[in-house]
Amino acid sequence: VGVNLKAIVTDAPHGGVWLREINEPVEHGDVLVQTVYTGVCGTDRGIVSGSLEFARKQEGFDYLVLGHECVGRVVESRNSSLKEGDFVVPVATMPGGCMNCHIGRPDYCSDGDFRAAGVYRKNGYMRSYFREDSDHLIRVPDPSLSLIAVLTEPLKNVMKVVDLLSLLGYRCITTAPGSTYSGKRALIIGTGPEALLFSRVFCDMGFHVIAVNRHDIGEKHRKLIEKSGAFFVDYSRDKLDGMEFDVAVDTSGDPSAVVYCIRKMARNGILFLFGTNGRAPAYGITGTDIDRVVEYNIAIAGSVDGGRVHYEKALRKLHEWYMQDRDSVRSLITAIRKPEDLDVFRFKEEGEIKSVIEW
Amino acid sequence: VGVNLKAIVTDAPHGGVWLREINEPVEHGDVLVQTVYTGVCGTDRGIVSGSLEFARKQEGFDYLVLGHECVGRVVESRNSSLKEGDFVVPVATMPGGCMNCHIGRPDYCSDGDFRAAGVYRKNGYMRSYFREDSDHLIRVPDPSLSLIAVLTEPLKNVMKVVDLLSLLGYRCITTAPGSTYSGKRALIIGTGPEALLFSRVFCDMGFHVIAVNRHDIGEKHRKLIEKSGAFFVDYSRDKLDGMEFDVAVDTSGDPSAVVYCIRKMARNGILFLFGTNGRAPAYGITGTDIDRVVEYNIAIAGSVDGGRVHYEKALRKLHEWYMQDRDSVRSLITAIRKPEDLDVFRFKEEGEIKSVIEW
Amino acid sequence: VGVNLKAIVTDAPHGGVWLREINEPVEHGDVLVQTVYTGVCGTDRGIVSGSLEFARKQEGFDYLVLGHECVGRVVESRNSSLKEGDFVVPVATMPGGCMNCHIGRPDYCSDGDFRAAGVYRKNGYMRSYFREDSDHLIRVPDPSLSLIAVLTEPLKNVMKVVDLLSLLGYRCITTAPGSTYSGKRALIIGTGPEALLFSRVFCDMGFHVIAVNRHDIGEKHRKLIEKSGAFFVDYSRDKLDGMEFDVAVDTSGDPSAVVYCIRKMARNGILFLFGTNGRAPAYGITGTDIDRVVEYNIAIAGSVDGGRVHYEKALRKLHEWYMQDRDSVRSLITAIRKPEDLDVFRFKEEGEIKSVIEW
Amino acid sequence: VGVNLKAIVTDAPHGGVWLREINEPVEHGDVLVQTVYTGVCGTDRGIVSGSLEFARKQEGFDYLVLGHECVGRVVESRNSSLKEGDFVVPVATMPGGCMNCHIGRPDYCSDGDFRAAGVYRKNGYMRSYFREDSDHLIRVPDPSLSLIAVLTEPLKNVMKVVDLLSLLGYRCITTAPGSTYSGKRALIIGTGPEALLFSRVFCDMGFHVIAVNRHDIGEKHRKLIEKSGAFFVDYSRDKLDGMEFDVAVDTSGDPSAVVYCIRKMARNGILFLFGTNGRAPAYGITGTDIDRVVEYNIAIAGSVDGGRVHYEKALRKLHEWYMQDRDSVRSLITAIRKPEDLDVFRFKEEGEIKSVIEW
Repeated sequence: VGVNLKAIVTDAPHGGVWLREINEPVEHGDVLVQTVYTGVCGTDRGIVSGSLEFARKQEGFDYLVLGHECVGRVVESRNSSLKEGDFVVPVATMPGGCMNCHIGRPDYCSDGDFRAAGVYRKNGYMRSYFREDSDHLIRVPDPSLSLIAVLTEPLKNVMKVVDLLSLLGYRCITTAPGSTYSGKRALIIGTGPEALLFSRVFCDMGFHVIAVNRHDIGEKHRKLIEKSGAFFVDYSRDKLDGMEFDVAVDTSGDPSAVVYCIRKMARNGILFLFGTNGRAPAYGITGTDIDRVVEYNIAIAGSVDGGRVHYEKALRKLHEWYMQDRDSVRSLITAIRKPEDLDVFRFKEEGEIKSVIEW
Repeated sequence: VGVNLKAIVTDAPHGGVWLREINEPVEHGDVLVQTVYTGVCGTDRGIVSGSLEFARKQEGFDYLVLGHECVGRVVESRNSSLKEGDFVVPVATMPGGCMNCHIGRPDYCSDGDFRAAGVYRKNGYMRSYFREDSDHLIRVPDPSLSLIAVLTEPLKNVMKVVDLLSLLGYRCITTAPGSTYSGKRALIIGTGPEALLFSRVFCDMGFHVIAVNRHDIGEKHRKLIEKSGAFFVDYSRDKLDGMEFDVAVDTSGDPSAVVYCIRKMARNGILFLFGTNGRAPAYGITGTDIDRVVEYNIAIAGSVDGGRVHYEKALRKLHEWYMQDRDSVRSLITAIRKPEDLDVFRFKEEGEIKSVIEW
Repeated sequence: VGVNLKAIVTDAPHGGVWLREINEPVEHGDVLVQTVYTGVCGTDRGIVSGSLEFARKQEGFDYLVLGHECVGRVVESRNSSLKEGDFVVPVATMPGGCMNCHIGRPDYCSDGDFRAAGVYRKNGYMRSYFREDSDHLIRVPDPSLSLIAVLTEPLKNVMKVVDLLSLLGYRCITTAPGSTYSGKRALIIGTGPEALLFSRVFCDMGFHVIAVNRHDIGEKHRKLIEKSGAFFVDYSRDKLDGMEFDVAVDTSGDPSAVVYCIRKMARNGILFLFGTNGRAPAYGITGTDIDRVVEYNIAIAGSVDGGRVHYEKALRKLHEWYMQDRDSVRSLITAIRKPEDLDVFRFKEEGEIKSVIEW
Repeated sequence: VGVNLKAIVTDAPHGGVWLREINEPVEHGDVLVQTVYTGVCGTDRGIVSGSLEFARKQEGFDYLVLGHECVGRVVESRNSSLKEGDFVVPVATMPGGCMNCHIGRPDYCSDGDFRAAGVYRKNGYMRSYFREDSDHLIRVPDPSLSLIAVLTEPLKNVMKVVDLLSLLGYRCITTAPGSTYSGKRALIIGTGPEALLFSRVFCDMGFHVIAVNRHDIGEKHRKLIEKSGAFFVDYSRDKLDGMEFDVAVDTSGDPSAVVYCIRKMARNGILFLFGTNGRAPAYGITGTDIDRVVEYNIAIAGSVDGGRVHYEKALRKLHEWYMQDRDSVRSLITAIRKPEDLDVFRFKEEGEIKSVIEW
């Protein structure tokens, strides 16, 4: 490994994006990893546009290396369970000193002293190489998964929500008479990669899933949703009148969508908020909305990130999907780009679901 | 027991309030109860003003008898565990046919087929006598509690929230280092009877409690709050800048108060919505608010009513408070009225916390 | 469908086994199913030998049709979600009237008023045809799973235990530092089909699994265990001295094995009891054993059967395993017999894991 | 505070007991406490007799000061929430470095690196004075509780079990139809102080409680049990035939009692093991016993110690009982001894429930 690395960097929190050579940083960790694929997501674009105010550089650096969705290949390892050539997914969030961090759940960090690769106080994976502690690397069980494993990081968010749903299931009976979710209804706001991952996981759990957006989506996109067993509805046209949902997930971060969800929840319904969009316009929540939340025992849970346990469940889920039908999961990745194609951070291509950079 | 009873009735959902003689209804139940005290709450006033749209008459009646907060005295009993002269609190919600109702939790009714005395499809307790099944009556352990036991019904709502807090406590570590809530902060929106009950219960759990309102409250009122260990803040003047809360409860139902709470929640904070006020003006929730809920893993839980288990815990709590300091709990009841004083349903007296009708 | 069916019957609880023609019983249910495969397990053999005292005939019958592990093919259906030719797995336990039965969990029946096909008060599936309500049938998603789906019933027991483990996980921190079970140790007593299913599921969860027996097992058997990622130890020779286990499962029902497990549990360890063997000799549990359970906060949980939710999770798991490596899951089925081969109920073949009857 | 302190010491784990003068140890902690009362329990007697094998001296000491049940009075405090004259109860268990210790639950210590005052690697409170960190001291809210507060430590064990019962309550429906434990049956093995505390707490929860022993107990003792709402049965004479219990607690540590409990558990029953008695004779557990645990979904949970949260709940419970009826709780303390009366460690007086040493 040479002294200089190619890296995609930004000037957090001010934004901008550059491909530049950086000096290899001195990093701790028993494993040297060559980056293979990194995914691009809304958070990356938010950092680049300067709209993500909590983005921060790593201490001692005058740039932040982007990238938190990553698959790499082990180049050197001093850990016996990882060997040269293994594909790995890094766990992007590093614990700080609070009690939740201490028990391996920095996604529930209680004091903000965690670090998140590519976002907050830690350089990310959009560079030729990185060194990492084996505790933060998850082995990809099969090389044929090396590309789709880049979806592990976004899918782990879904797996945390599934855990939360299971906990909230102890509140009261929310299953159908046969003890399953069969026939219960789930509403997913959005049709981006997170929304599609939520849709498919909820279909797998037996929910009747409707994914919605405020505009029509392309034929290919719609087919992908239907392949996972869900339905698409353009809810700017079909208001889903008379329908109520037992579970809903907002991936848009848009206040008007969140309020729409509240109005669609069934008794004892659970609404998960996952999407963020600080710049979305405010929307009026009414007294009647609050009444509904109260009278119907509605639970609304914000959920960010996930623990290592959720990365592992996500990778296993991707493996399962890949074996069921490799095309449907592969087709979530709509473009493979070169590190030089910095436009991917500024524009969302027509029909894009997930764009990936190949290193 | 004569054929005619004195009763306070309304024309649900249209409103109005009358004291009239009614024919004693044919009711099932092994116990005949003489009503002793009934409490008046915001729900009663909402029904009377016609603003509570879900209020409904009992089938076969052209009026709805009001009253869900009640203490009575047993007049006749065919059940061995309740005898003549015992004071009892009735469980106001009757199960329907859904699974939650079937397991004794009509407060989580999943199809709306429950009945709620004095509110929804069942005549209430504001009448000289009623007949009830012993399964829906809770014995007051000590006659000296007969007046304050009228607070059992409002306090059971708090006890359900405590159970929810305990369940949500399994989500991540939310306690202080010593495994207690000692020093954790709770925000209570409102200074009415429910707010004061929440304040005191949360103080008992070790929280540092701040109860707020948008205007100053009287000296007596403030003292009551301080006696329970909480603090009062007029947040129209003191914005509590820089303070974050681990738990919050809204008892106002006002969208602007709910959004204020969201902005005050700490990481992993839990906000309970209990108050309802369908006519409160809408308030804009922003993208930044949604961001906070997501990034901070904030949980928001609407909670209505409670199960018999919560009535029992409430009565035990009232007993405990009464023994600690009978004045502080007694002083929550600021007026004892006669059934003829129907103005109590139309006006809230200066300094009122809880008004009670003596039968 | 003719009037007479071929069926394998017993004289519960006295035992015996006969293949005979029976009159087609009048059964309720919107689906007629032709039996394709039925599995034979220790419970069937216990019923046949007369040692399972709680076995009972269905009311109005002078025999009990055996069989609770079953895959069938739909012949006629009045339910739109199941069509002719679909493969289905029946849910063997029917609810009674208690609260747990009412919410779809007859596996937690609190008064014994459930019925269990082939075992207790309900004729089983070892007959040419049966009629069933579609609520009690689970569709096999892929015809290629039709044989291994016969393992759904035994595997659902494991899935219930996984749920219990997850609930007990809220008691205290039992995961490794990274929030996963990676590196935590599981002990499985036994090497029969249930033991092998537990082993593989626990391996999938990240546990380091050791399956033990008191004698050596064949090479093929050992390979199967190792293929799932577990290790085999003959603990009549290797006492596993110095090893402690975070989780253990007994599938033997043998008191000496259960006590052995207790002595092997780590602090906060969880021991699941699944196996039953009423005729096993008693074994002395000592004061020191009780001390260990107390001082180490050891939890011991008996677990029987599972809900429909666990059948569905089991079938999904079998699908996943089948896709990963169809041979390893197929090789759990060591013999396919004809209904006439009644010896399968009396003798366990050398090297048998699961024997299946093809109809 | 002089250089020399009076202390009751032992030579752990070999046993023996001496009252001697010791040099005041250099201890960290912002509060100096004068010991007022210390309780004597079976653990102290076990250490003194040399039968408690895990007892250990504090590092650097050639003796172990006994005492873990304690009430003291603050002599000097550098912490603002505790002032001179306040009565305090020390939290006897000190955390080590594991994750459970880190989150304030050394009672679930996963590696044995905790320290327990008076028992294991930490000098106890049977000495004139001790210095402690205010984090490990709980303020007694009312000086009139100063004597009965010595029961906080034994009662905290019960409060932890109540938490466990609540968690296990999520497994399936175990409450009566009205969502309470009313009418459910609890069996308590033993009539010592822990047994009586369990009995009273379970009565408070609505259970029908039967406390048993293998011999008759005195009239006074029996009255105490009945006063708390429970019943006493000498089960060497009345086998409680035909009765089943939803919850049971063993406080004896005797294998034969534990097996007796298993045979008495109802479906879905929960048995807590709290008592320890390593020298009790072994008892045969049969295949039928194991069958029952499995077929009835019986959970058995060892439970030791409790967290600070349970000390606080215990002190609050004692306060509640004291206010209800100060005699009944006071009468649990059957003797107040002087430090010189070392016989209290060797003999259990006729009719003793709890003996306390006054300093």
